[in-house]
Amino acid sequence: MKLLRNLFVIIFLFAVFVPFGNAEEKRVRWKLAMTWGPTLHPFVDTVENMADMVETMSGGNFVIRIDASNIHKSPFGVFDMVKLGQYEMGHTASYYWKGKDMSFLPLTTMPFGMTTPEQYAWFYYGGGMELMQKAYEKNGMLSFPGGNTGNQMGGWFRKEINSLDDLKGLKMRIPGFAGQVLAKLGVTVTNIPPGELYTSLERGTIDALEWVGPGMDINMGFHKIAPYYYTGWHEPATELQFLVNKKAYDKLPEKYKEILKVAMKTAAYDMYIQNYHMSANAWSTMKEKYPNIKVKTFPDEVLNAMKTSYNELLSKYKKENALFKEIMESKEAYLKKARDWTYISDYLYLKSMSDTE
Amino acid sequence: MKLLRNLFVIIFLFAVFVPFGNAEEKRVRWKLAMTWGPTLHPFVDTVENMADMVETMSGGNFVIRIDASNIHKSPFGVFDMVKLGQYEMGHTASYYWKGKDMSFLPLTTMPFGMTTPEQYAWFYYGGGMELMQKAYEKNGMLSFPGGNTGNQMGGWFRKEINSLDDLKGLKMRIPGFAGQVLAKLGVTVTNIPPGELYTSLERGTIDALEWVGPGMDINMGFHKIAPYYYTGWHEPATELQFLVNKKAYDKLPEKYKEILKVAMKTAAYDMYIQNYHMSANAWSTMKEKYPNIKVKTFPDEVLNAMKTSYNELLSKYKKENALFKEIMESKEAYLKKARDWTYISDYLYLKSMSDTE
Repeated sequence: MKLLRNLFVIIFLFAVFVPFGNAEEKRVRWKLAMTWGPTLHPFVDTVENMADMVETMSGGNFVIRIDASNIHKSPFGVFDMVKLGQYEMGHTASYYWKGKDMSFLPLTTMPFGMTTPEQYAWFYYGGGMELMQKAYEKNGMLSFPGGNTGNQMGGWFRKEINSLDDLKGLKMRIPGFAGQVLAKLGVTVTNIPPGELYTSLERGTIDALEWVGPGMDINMGFHKIAPYYYTGWHEPATELQFLVNKKAYDKLPEKYKEILKVAMKTAAYDMYIQNYHMSANAWSTMKEKYPNIKVKTFPDEVLNAMKTSYNELLSKYKKENALFKEIMESKEAYLKKARDWTYISDYLYLKSMSDTE
Repeated sequence: MKLLRNLFVIIFLFAVFVPFGNAEEKRVRWKLAMTWGPTLHPFVDTVENMADMVETMSGGNFVIRIDASNIHKSPFGVFDMVKLGQYEMGHTASYYWKGKDMSFLPLTTMPFGMTTPEQYAWFYYGGGMELMQKAYEKNGMLSFPGGNTGNQMGGWFRKEINSLDDLKGLKMRIPGFAGQVLAKLGVTVTNIPPGELYTSLERGTIDALEWVGPGMDINMGFHKIAPYYYTGWHEPATELQFLVNKKAYDKLPEKYKEILKVAMKTAAYDMYIQNYHMSANAWSTMKEKYPNIKVKTFPDEVLNAMKTSYNELLSKYKKENALFKEIMESKEAYLKKARDWTYISDYLYLKSMSDTE
């Protein structure tokens, strides 16, 4: 009788606890660090959408806590925090890490480069994902597209740019690689914290700045004080980035890996579409309220000089970094084919629609 | 003692059997009917990717069997089969159902309408999904974007079209609404099964035809016998469709609903990108092997006449069908805003890149 009772106790304990230990029902709690503050739309929406999809698709078992930069206090420490496993995930942009390795730069966007659908085609069908993993695997991380801003505008200028001479001595806030390109043309490139940009532009501390596009520019108010809105050249398809710690990822059950990958991919595509919507709405509002805004394209002389400056920097970095060279050559070859198609499809369609209005 | 043993038995039975009856582990087997045959890429890839994602994300518990048209023998019966619950899902295109209700037509694409990112922005952020559900809920179904072909080309022509007169008596295979638009301009619109198109074009039974774009056109071989490749006007963003039987959907556990919705959305976005890639590659190959191909845009006179013809048909259908009118007015208002943004972003970027080559 005692034996029977002990047997029941063993079966009871087994039956009660085993289901909770089942890999199918594994409970996972992750943390994600964003480079952004908690109100930077649509970037933060992308992360929240991703986490919501993961939670719902896993039946509430895989939950990702999101820490904005006001919590972790280290917007540009996201790379290292994910690498070291302090956070399982990050949401950021690959080009912030070019100081660590130049091959991280072209995984975001490049001047004179691909548009968003062209670049997604490169990532998913043209070898881009494999090259991106090659760049990140050395750091114990996986990297995935994290949302695209679409084509970024060339920036807000207080005065019109009619020639190369107008660039000489121009004080402009334009960070990163595009800033290097312009610096070679005589632009005084400055970096000013976002909170001080409006006042700097208003007081003439700077003559111009670039931000993103109408959807994210409208709340900054630059259109009220710098009426020349230049079309884009430097960030035609800025792709943000999800970083994932590889050890943490490898421990996930297969179905959670797939849930995570699909949620990141969907959230990234969605951001491209959300920002399209935000920019369409914001641009419509801006034009109506501020009819003084003038959309301008840089003169061919200026664009050609920018291209020359860009190509010089490109040659230099290709010589210095083999993986950078490999990624750029892959992007350049893909751009050529993809652009020929874009030209006869969307471009000539848009042109004929505009010509016959 | 007996009481204690009975208690153990009850706890034992409860603990063993409850986890297996848990809704979290529900096994679901669905069937999906495609309008297409089993080899029509990238359409079939989209469905397979969707089903693969659902299966993996559900840990193998939610499995969707795919029947191509060679199995169910009813390519244009997909609507009714899903409505009646013979299949839980379908993969097809909404504009095939315009004979049942004109309001199904504009949920695919419209002549002179939105490009793919513009239309996705309308679906997901501009009220499009709500209008689509309004059209389908009367039929006991849910409808979701099912993959976009991107901008379709205007077709392959044996002779150049220089004026409206060149359209008179022209024999062209161009089905659906675009065919109606051209018929008003004197085109003799014919419908010929896909398998007979090449021979018909070669023998002059028809003078022109439209298919999709380079990625799907290349295997049809039309470029070998009709060298004028016209740019698009009639299907700028053809969105395929997933149909889901509402009763079947309502029975799914919440997490499977989300898994299904996210998988459909991702697969649809992916098809847009996959077809971009296929077209970029195919166009590159075609141009190289057949340097005689001439890309043409219809003259403004012809495009303007097409627009007039289109607007006349539009007015007629708006008067006849209130939901068609509501959907079209929503699309027209959205297009205006979205196109202004497309124009100053991607369009002027592409123009300046082309001008300074």
